[in-house]
Amino acid sequence: MRMLCACRAAFFRLRAEAMVLHLVPRWSARLFWASPGWRRTYTRGASVRLKWLGCPRGMYSPLACRAYSAVAGGPEVMLTPERYPVQRLPFSTVSEEDLAAFEYIIPGRVITDPEQLHACNVDWLRTVRGCSKVLLRPQTSEEVSQILRHCYKRNLAVNPQGGNTGMVGGSVPVFDEVILSTALMNQVISFHDVSGILVCQAGCVLEELSRYVQERDFIMPLDLGAKGSCHIGGNVATNAGGLRFLRYGSLRGTVLGLEVVLADGTILNCLTSLRKDNTGYDLKQMFIGSEGTLGVITAVSIVCPPKPKAVNVAFLGCPGFTEVLQTFRTCKGMLGEILSAFEFMDTECMQLVGQHLHLTNPVQESPFYVLVETSGSSAGHDAEKLTSVLEQVLNSGLVTDGTMATDQRKVQMLWALRERITEALSRDGYVFKYDLSLPVERLYDLVIDLRTRLGPHAKHVVGYGHLGDGNLHLNVTAEAFSQELLGALEPYVYAWTAEQRGSVSAEHGLGFKKKNVLSYSKSPVAVKLMQQLKAMLDPKGILNPYKTLPAQA
Amino acid sequence: MRMLCACRAAFFRLRAEAMVLHLVPRWSARLFWASPGWRRTYTRGASVRLKWLGCPRGMYSPLACRAYSAVAGGPEVMLTPERYPVQRLPFSTVSEEDLAAFEYIIPGRVITDPEQLHACNVDWLRTVRGCSKVLLRPQTSEEVSQILRHCYKRNLAVNPQGGNTGMVGGSVPVFDEVILSTALMNQVISFHDVSGILVCQAGCVLEELSRYVQERDFIMPLDLGAKGSCHIGGNVATNAGGLRFLRYGSLRGTVLGLEVVLADGTILNCLTSLRKDNTGYDLKQMFIGSEGTLGVITAVSIVCPPKPKAVNVAFLGCPGFTEVLQTFRTCKGMLGEILSAFEFMDTECMQLVGQHLHLTNPVQESPFYVLVETSGSSAGHDAEKLTSVLEQVLNSGLVTDGTMATDQRKVQMLWALRERITEALSRDGYVFKYDLSLPVERLYDLVIDLRTRLGPHAKHVVGYGHLGDGNLHLNVTAEAFSQELLGALEPYVYAWTAEQRGSVSAEHGLGFKKKNVLSYSKSPVAVKLMQQLKAMLDPKGILNPYKTLPAQA
Repeated sequence: MRMLCACRAAFFRLRAEAMVLHLVPRWSARLFWASPGWRRTYTRGASVRLKWLGCPRGMYSPLACRAYSAVAGGPEVMLTPERYPVQRLPFSTVSEEDLAAFEYIIPGRVITDPEQLHACNVDWLRTVRGCSKVLLRPQTSEEVSQILRHCYKRNLAVNPQGGNTGMVGGSVPVFDEVILSTALMNQVISFHDVSGILVCQAGCVLEELSRYVQERDFIMPLDLGAKGSCHIGGNVATNAGGLRFLRYGSLRGTVLGLEVVLADGTILNCLTSLRKDNTGYDLKQMFIGSEGTLGVITAVSIVCPPKPKAVNVAFLGCPGFTEVLQTFRTCKGMLGEILSAFEFMDTECMQLVGQHLHLTNPVQESPFYVLVETSGSSAGHDAEKLTSVLEQVLNSGLVTDGTMATDQRKVQMLWALRERITEALSRDGYVFKYDLSLPVERLYDLVIDLRTRLGPHAKHVVGYGHLGDGNLHLNVTAEAFSQELLGALEPYVYAWTAEQRGSVSAEHGLGFKKKNVLSYSKSPVAVKLMQQLKAMLDPKGILNPYKTLPAQA
Repeated sequence: MRMLCACRAAFFRLRAEAMVLHLVPRWSARLFWASPGWRRTYTRGASVRLKWLGCPRGMYSPLACRAYSAVAGGPEVMLTPERYPVQRLPFSTVSEEDLAAFEYIIPGRVITDPEQLHACNVDWLRTVRGCSKVLLRPQTSEEVSQILRHCYKRNLAVNPQGGNTGMVGGSVPVFDEVILSTALMNQVISFHDVSGILVCQAGCVLEELSRYVQERDFIMPLDLGAKGSCHIGGNVATNAGGLRFLRYGSLRGTVLGLEVVLADGTILNCLTSLRKDNTGYDLKQMFIGSEGTLGVITAVSIVCPPKPKAVNVAFLGCPGFTEVLQTFRTCKGMLGEILSAFEFMDTECMQLVGQHLHLTNPVQESPFYVLVETSGSSAGHDAEKLTSVLEQVLNSGLVTDGTMATDQRKVQMLWALRERITEALSRDGYVFKYDLSLPVERLYDLVIDLRTRLGPHAKHVVGYGHLGDGNLHLNVTAEAFSQELLGALEPYVYAWTAEQRGSVSAEHGLGFKKKNVLSYSKSPVAVKLMQQLKAMLDPKGILNPYKTLPAQA
């Protein structure tokens, strides 16, 4: 702590010379609570927290509630087939006999009440809506197996559903698919307190797992804004990236094992807890990121990193995107192994979180802002490293203003500026959302390009995201959905991304809404191979149909 | 540096109280050169270095030579079908017309000279030998594609071969398969000096890539004893683990993209350079660890971590395996993000490297030794952290003696004690090798168990390996191969491992020699699915036949 104070003092001296530093402590509780909408949502989330259905679980933290806020209220969402050109495939429809069979398998956990079904038919962004007539809530893999065996035999389509926090319409039915929820599969199976290997059922809520492992001095290797609602099985099924990706890498490395139920009900147990296992093909990888189209993930084995002893966050203002990139390069070089996040947002994002959520900008207004997080095992060492970086970037003019936080509450306040952009955008009007991987040098060019291209047709064109991972969240807001604006955006955004050899879905997946843009990032050979894989694992195509892969000609 | 000296001083003070410290500088050059066999091998390696065939490339470092040393000299290796019960499958045999077709595709690079073919027919452990009559050396993916298209049409079996450093007989033909070498596909395609993303052809030698990226202030995310010979394509095809696994994780996370030629010659280009890409199924994962049985990897995109500014190595003696485990726990907790390796070896290993290679034990004789490596961005901070750990483990009696190195030469000397165990074992007689993943607490139990079980039938039963990854290398030496000893070892070792829910191949793969033990680690459902995958991607089964999967009933 002594060294940390010394570091702060140094930073404050710097500020006196180079910038007007706004200390985080100046922020009031108002930062989080001044928005009536937010408060209302929170209250609502809390009040329904104990209800079993529709309401994402574990909704006691502000971030947790955000996911729910987009679901609640507003006019009814248009049925998916009314907005999108999609034809129902010749699956069977659920009969009374089917319901009786389900009731036999999971007595008391077959839901057909329309009101209860409603929340599970609509995605949280309120952009797509299915019309499923039945929701199943198994508790065990064996039950999932029996359900799928029945559906397979009867040719009933199935929509596996976790926390329903997906961004691409992958987590809700398109038509009348049977909804198979993992909500009651929420048990920790084992945790090893030396290796940090956690084995749990797929329906465990990420935030609850985080708390569980933190009590044991570990952290989950992934963190998301939707953590209060999303299920670990859903995270794995979408290969979620999130805020810790820069440090702890992909789920493809941290997920050690999976249990998956295949389309015909066969249970595939690859639930190993081994760091290394080179016996045959790594089958679990097929299911990571397959969005429930190849199998239903029922349990996950994942390795958790030790909980860092110190976390520091710096929030900095940069005069241009070039300086953002140079600041990133400096941080990578000087912070090395303790750099755990490098996020950026443009000034429009800051204006929107100010306007819609009344969050206060803690630094001078700047064209760009970056959030740098360090996580390490020595508070003193980490602060010393971060201070050196800040001296460097301030002295060289890469950064014009900044603030730093070390205690958890203030760290969370700074993170809120970045994490709540999605919420601010959703209050700005209809949002066209793009989640792109691009070469980092060209990451912001598309935003500038689109502002010129769209002119006054767009309300706001904003760019933010995980700069450290080359991941841009490009969002365009308008007063309302407009076909004309959509036409100006698509396929332009996808073609632009393809030209840079980028990815048209960095971390959100393809789900229902993006499945037709797959070919912008993948070759015909690759797409054909994906279709072969789907046909091999799910020959009747009953698992999450209309998702991930474009319809075959 | 100042802080580092302070740290050393502290460490020396500790030694005065608790141990007799042998400083690394006492070691003489003799450490590496005293063994006549070693010198001979090195000379030989150097002398043939520029020859294109049979000799692993880049053989200028002592470690690089190790791989080659096992190949050179000794009596002729028995043909694989003479030692193992395996039947040739009904593939075509290579005809004059086939040779003419190959010569048309890769003029001047079709090798049929028996002497030149010999080295590519024998594995480096000299345990299996094929009788291939032709070696092909393409330079481009297009050439690989044309070759495979021809072989597929003609039903010719193909053995893809990288540096031929595999441990399970996966890299050489079993019968007369066409050998398809990646040796001439050794070009770096691109390197991005901010992201550290390297794209290269599959035949690049790991050590050459290491040097290439180190000159640009990055390191390869994997390191192996065989680095002077092994190809990056082969590393990916076997999902190599190695010495940096603990810190930088699996190739499943660090490999960003692959180019693969499928059995029928189709080129699958998934050579993306993106950290994140969730567009459809991650096809490249199917080929990582598939040992050339599903496709031929022709190019790799891999993310390289920044080069650490400081590397420290401590070599410590522990009084028992319990203390080894507690030392590991202490290191994990106190070194956190800078811990980059935690290796262990038993006293028998140390005796063997002393006896056969004349390496000197730098610490007091102990039942166990551990090698702890830190890699970080601040020499001072890292040394301070390591010193705290050493104080702790010495004071608490977990460690009874130790030495520490910071400069590169001495670091390499300490590493040699661990890395050259394989070589020492091969000089001890016939070696039965097992590469197991086990729960870390039970990692050494099997070694003790086997010593009792085998009694005087075994010359030595030793245990060492990547403790940090739960990976035991269990080796049993005998004067000569003995069916009786084999019968006492197998299936006992596999059954014991299966009982602990371990893996019968942690990092070496299954190749030819271990394919029949797959079922000890994988369920019948998983094995069946692997066979389906193989049938889908290689319907004629021409790619690396007799490997990875057990023959179907």
